[in-house]
Amino acid sequence: MIKDMIEPKTLKGFRDFLPKEAKKRQYVIQALKEVFESYGFEPLETPALEYDEILSGKYGEEGDKLMYRFEDRGGRKVAMRYDQTVPLARVVAQYQNELPMPFKRYQIQNVWRAENPQKGRYREFLQCDADIVGLDTPLSDAEVMLAAAKSLEKLGFKKFRILFNSRNILYRIMQEANIPEEKWNTTLQTLDKIKKVSLDDLDKELSNKGLGEKTFSTILDPAIFKVTTNWKNEDPRLSETYKNAIELGIPQKNIDFMSSIVRGLDYYTGMIFEIEIEGYDIGSVCGGGRYDKLIGMFSGKDIPAVGFSFGFDRLIEAMDELKLFPDDLISTKVLVTVFNKDLLSKSIDACSLLRSKNINTELFLEENSNLEKQLKYADKKGIPYVVIIGPEESAKNLVKIKDLRSGKQKEISQEEMAEWLNS
Amino acid sequence: MIKDMIEPKTLKGFRDFLPKEAKKRQYVIQALKEVFESYGFEPLETPALEYDEILSGKYGEEGDKLMYRFEDRGGRKVAMRYDQTVPLARVVAQYQNELPMPFKRYQIQNVWRAENPQKGRYREFLQCDADIVGLDTPLSDAEVMLAAAKSLEKLGFKKFRILFNSRNILYRIMQEANIPEEKWNTTLQTLDKIKKVSLDDLDKELSNKGLGEKTFSTILDPAIFKVTTNWKNEDPRLSETYKNAIELGIPQKNIDFMSSIVRGLDYYTGMIFEIEIEGYDIGSVCGGGRYDKLIGMFSGKDIPAVGFSFGFDRLIEAMDELKLFPDDLISTKVLVTVFNKDLLSKSIDACSLLRSKNINTELFLEENSNLEKQLKYADKKGIPYVVIIGPEESAKNLVKIKDLRSGKQKEISQEEMAEWLNS
Repeated sequence: MIKDMIEPKTLKGFRDFLPKEAKKRQYVIQALKEVFESYGFEPLETPALEYDEILSGKYGEEGDKLMYRFEDRGGRKVAMRYDQTVPLARVVAQYQNELPMPFKRYQIQNVWRAENPQKGRYREFLQCDADIVGLDTPLSDAEVMLAAAKSLEKLGFKKFRILFNSRNILYRIMQEANIPEEKWNTTLQTLDKIKKVSLDDLDKELSNKGLGEKTFSTILDPAIFKVTTNWKNEDPRLSETYKNAIELGIPQKNIDFMSSIVRGLDYYTGMIFEIEIEGYDIGSVCGGGRYDKLIGMFSGKDIPAVGFSFGFDRLIEAMDELKLFPDDLISTKVLVTVFNKDLLSKSIDACSLLRSKNINTELFLEENSNLEKQLKYADKKGIPYVVIIGPEESAKNLVKIKDLRSGKQKEISQEEMAEWLNS
Repeated sequence: MIKDMIEPKTLKGFRDFLPKEAKKRQYVIQALKEVFESYGFEPLETPALEYDEILSGKYGEEGDKLMYRFEDRGGRKVAMRYDQTVPLARVVAQYQNELPMPFKRYQIQNVWRAENPQKGRYREFLQCDADIVGLDTPLSDAEVMLAAAKSLEKLGFKKFRILFNSRNILYRIMQEANIPEEKWNTTLQTLDKIKKVSLDDLDKELSNKGLGEKTFSTILDPAIFKVTTNWKNEDPRLSETYKNAIELGIPQKNIDFMSSIVRGLDYYTGMIFEIEIEGYDIGSVCGGGRYDKLIGMFSGKDIPAVGFSFGFDRLIEAMDELKLFPDDLISTKVLVTVFNKDLLSKSIDACSLLRSKNINTELFLEENSNLEKQLKYADKKGIPYVVIIGPEESAKNLVKIKDLRSGKQKEISQEEMAEWLNS
């Protein structure tokens, strides 16, 4: 038997979430949903599998390589969801008469990418996107920044900064630096590394790309300075967006223009932003911007859009580091033990009462188990309170309640028990 | 451009859930989670992809055929989640030192089966499972029935019946009918059709399986009568489970022994049950039972388990038919319109106030849109209320609020507005 056994293991880059981690994830998802919905974003779900032709070629060479693609048994070429933006584009085209415009949707689903797994990078991970499709206004640009900020506040983050820029500014900078237009995208990809590498390295990389020696330090850097010190005039739309963001309620201390925000993806066309959290230095937890040429890919006409995406794993990590998860992020608050068969009904009564007060309550489901084993179980599961109803307590019509963390215990009536647990 | 366009479509058997449907799904998921957690079940998530060897061979020939299996680009044979029980078995073996025992977990994730799509049958569908692993007691059998019943109550179902039986009873029946043990499984598969086909057909099917003419009507049927009229004595464990179920709080009118409950799957070893809803005749919405030989498949020793699974799509369908979804299953309650640029700040103030009162509020994100277009948008999105702040209202320091369903409107102060909407 043992010889034939299959080793229980998961694929590299794929994770199980045992209850403790799963509860954290649910907590964050629930908070994000509530904030998204408070701004009129509504949920959308799309399938895990799409026709390959829907997804392939949409994410560049890299994407086609990393996408999970295969033939199903009907001989159809299929691919697993790689992001939530291309499916959104398909949905907008497929249901164009049904959907209200603007279409404000959020989507919280897994995506799959066969990247080389490393710390913080997985092959299956959750994306949390919120987008406004069909509107090209500074107000909509501002609102996505607001909704992202309010999400972080809801999760308990106090100190964070929304850093924004725009593709227009970046184009103006490259114009000013006399970089030929066909080199703009590749230059942006280098600029995106500005916070991670030295100026020398930027010079080298641009030189390797055929842009001449010391292009960054002698030409681009001064251009960045010149254009960005004057960004409000260089990009009146961005200035309006900023004004709207403040009007909508983003505190001025939390939002700033930042020339180093570039965003790697080619598809952005206007405002771009990232959010950095003080005390969490791994990188931005949220990124987004305006992309007016992407959503229309299946409908044959440009449809403007703006949105953002949270890095879910980073959010969880940042919350762990800053200790933002509530102490009592537990689903089971009380274990009601069973003393013996005769006293089972007393324990059942206690459970019913506690559940009627919305207290998650577990009954120990064995009639003949010793108390020690039951307490040990509660402890291992992280249940903070146990209720004991033995012959003594029963005779006095009381229950004994024990706080496993402090070790304190007291005898109280069933009615007081619920009150005490809820306080 | 148009010529090269890819037709936006989804794979057969796969579905998009636009906001209206997605909200229903979230409502049901949330309700199930709350009930599951109130009994001490905790969330578990497992990956969409597993090593093929983990899943293949676990679901019989049919399962191996219907499973989505492929080679990833690293040459690994992988398979998509086919159910949640085999992954649970893997998790129990893989983390045996970490997990509390009993391990009470619920899992709500998609599974994929390449079945022939037909009404109500999809290739991607949500499973909602709750199981107790590591306990073999009548109380645990009873509790899973209770948790299933409470879930249905929470969703608003008033009239339903838990119908239970046990594999022991079924084995006794076949013994009584002198059916050779090696034919028990195939006989059970025929018996599982008892509610769907005629007695004649049952006779024919058993005869085709080599069990002789009229085996059902002349031998099995009397055996069923004889054994099941005496089920409490024939299966004292089941009798104890029934007693516990009543003690735990399942009303007697909602639970019955039923000889025709068989459950198709081979793996059940003890109590089995299904739940039928009055007024929804498509079939049972929930099924479950005890399976003591399955969970240990990766750990090399038997680990008892009992649990149940909701048919999520059937639940949604039944709720639709019985009109159990709340009327106001909306995420966006109010659209605050924008009269013009000058009055934008008034509209923003109204939004902030409403959101601070936990009212999901959408601001129309265009400064120069006519009112008619804004009302039309609210109507199409199903937003029931709109707030209008024009020059007149602004001068009086009031807002106009309009109920789009009744057409009624009134002028009130901002403070009254939130109160009125919450009432």
